[in-house]
Amino acid sequence: PSDSNLITATLFPGDGIGPEIAESVKQVFKVADVPIEWEEQFVGTEVDPRTQSFLTLENLESVRRNRVGLKGPMATPVGKGHRSLNLTLRKELGLYANVRPCYSLPGYKTKYDDVDLITIRENTEGEYSGLEHQVVRGVVESIKIITRQASLRVAEYAFHYAKTHGRQRVSAIHKANIMQKTDGLFLKCCQEVAEKYPEITYEEVVIDNCCMMLVKNPALFDVLVMPNLYGDIISDLCAGLIGGLGLTPSCNIGEDGIALAEAVHGSAPDIAGKNLANPTALLLSAVTMLRHLDLHEKADRIQDAVLKTIAEGKYRTGDLGGNSTTTDFTKAICDHI
Amino acid sequence: PSDSNLITATLFPGDGIGPEIAESVKQVFKVADVPIEWEEQFVGTEVDPRTQSFLTLENLESVRRNRVGLKGPMATPVGKGHRSLNLTLRKELGLYANVRPCYSLPGYKTKYDDVDLITIRENTEGEYSGLEHQVVRGVVESIKIITRQASLRVAEYAFHYAKTHGRQRVSAIHKANIMQKTDGLFLKCCQEVAEKYPEITYEEVVIDNCCMMLVKNPALFDVLVMPNLYGDIISDLCAGLIGGLGLTPSCNIGEDGIALAEAVHGSAPDIAGKNLANPTALLLSAVTMLRHLDLHEKADRIQDAVLKTIAEGKYRTGDLGGNSTTTDFTKAICDHI
Ligand SMILES: CC(C)[C@H](C(=O)O)[C@@H](O)C(=O)O
Ligand SMILES: CC(C)[C@H](C(=O)O)[C@@H](O)C(=O)O
Repeated sequence: PSDSNLITATLFPGDGIGPEIAESVKQVFKVADVPIEWEEQFVGTEVDPRTQSFLTLENLESVRRNRVGLKGPMATPVGKGHRSLNLTLRKELGLYANVRPCYSLPGYKTKYDDVDLITIRENTEGEYSGLEHQVVRGVVESIKIITRQASLRVAEYAFHYAKTHGRQRVSAIHKANIMQKTDGLFLKCCQEVAEKYPEITYEEVVIDNCCMMLVKNPALFDVLVMPNLYGDIISDLCAGLIGGLGLTPSCNIGEDGIALAEAVHGSAPDIAGKNLANPTALLLSAVTMLRHLDLHEKADRIQDAVLKTIAEGKYRTGDLGGNSTTTDFTKAICDHI
Repeated sequence: PSDSNLITATLFPGDGIGPEIAESVKQVFKVADVPIEWEEQFVGTEVDPRTQSFLTLENLESVRRNRVGLKGPMATPVGKGHRSLNLTLRKELGLYANVRPCYSLPGYKTKYDDVDLITIRENTEGEYSGLEHQVVRGVVESIKIITRQASLRVAEYAFHYAKTHGRQRVSAIHKANIMQKTDGLFLKCCQEVAEKYPEITYEEVVIDNCCMMLVKNPALFDVLVMPNLYGDIISDLCAGLIGGLGLTPSCNIGEDGIALAEAVHGSAPDIAGKNLANPTALLLSAVTMLRHLDLHEKADRIQDAVLKTIAEGKYRTGDLGGNSTTTDFTKAICDHI
């Protein structure tokens, strides 16, 4: 870093619309005078034998060194002999908790106007173990793994998050009536952690019932913590309530205090390079990164400017029913800072 | 049967509010002159060693003999050494497809007014295998099993259902980007069956994306077919869109043409015996049973009477914001027949 007050953060612009929305974040950060210097990283064009992925060892080391990063959408190239980019990042960097705040955006109307949820997803094991095999022809198995260590770690993160963010309630989402041992262990770990946080209300909700309650009345929930696949499902459901993945931030918390924020929407190759992409999810993800760095004043200013721009409705990208370009929408945000 | 034109059907009134809502069905069937004679079955008060469950061998044989039945909610008694009643029924009777129609009820307003979905859930394997074990202390596994046989069978049922019910599209819901072998086999089976139904549009949708799309715009879907756990989740989500499990029918299709319709809501012990329960889900489930028997004229009359009564809004039970008793609501339905 050229200036010792600057924090270096890794930036993966990603594929498709990634570079355009990353450019939007860079501009907004500049205007808001955020003391961050970006270290841009590009995924390789062939498999790095050291990672078995298109992610290079340098990519991973950049995040490990900086401990903080932002990631645009990455399309895993189709083919054999390498692992999904997203899963490789989660595994290699020990990104054990995926935090997805989801709140109604003032002025952007959906069927729901009172959504304010935090999904905290265990991000390293469960149904994502990758252990699958054919038993005999026509009979295949996949193995879900739940460990005490990973469950305690994500439960601890969820309760700590609730406490430090003024949240009242943590709901553990499960299917322990069917998977008594795996989901049962997950619940047991949540219960153990809950005892250390008597000021936070703790409850357990079966995943099917949770989905029903979420669509009937999302205000019933506050912070939700759950194993990997349930988190994948519930966080997308929640995003749907407020308008979709183009509007919801995400941040992955890893070992040694690593935070890798990411937009979880796709790379939208159909509109890539056309100045039509909505940078909201990446901007709000960058805001979660700033909060992780305790740069709350900067975070507030950027978040307010994004929300105000959407609320005013004058500049909106096509996915939100407007016809602004990415650059005009970004400029409107900068004008609000 | 005393009258050779009568069809004998098994009836499990079930627990809690079960007997009251079963009584409602019996009355409505009588008024509609449905040619069905009920064979009532009661679950045992202790574990039957032949079934390892509170379900007796007689219970199971009644359904096997009659091939058609209706089931109220059953609360599995807590304790060791026996299996869940619902799961035992599914397993013992080979109930391989769980069909849950879900449509907006005219006059009963929710956030959605255009829901018309059929969830078809594989009902015998997947995450419900019951195979779980501790590997070492703090590390537990559960095994998901997908077989070619069960996947083909449920896919065949879904496409046949679509074709015979005038439906245009079947969506297979999966997470094959993560569980390539298990969900991959499920998709392969769906693809094979889809080829035999060129008139039905076939698509594949990842479960997380499906949940997001369902809450944004349920009209995007028509018939959905999927492995067990996804079906559990999606059918409850869909029920939430139109008001909850108190309003949605369900029918289990088994080997040898068995059909066991059931209300999938709980036994609501808090209001049991108070004449407050809503019999709608059990009535509409009974309607699916009639359709299975090709008694469409009776099915239409009863369904119309239920929907009309709810639409008029004069008689509604407490769960729908009214203050009718079960008997008054039932009487209003009978008056419409
Ligand atoms: C792309 C896919 C592997 C990924 C997941 O399943 O975790 C995505 O859905 C997500 O939520 O980040
Ligand atoms: C009660 C429970 C075992 C059951 C299931 O998970 O299948 C229920 O949720 C259902 O959908 O019938």
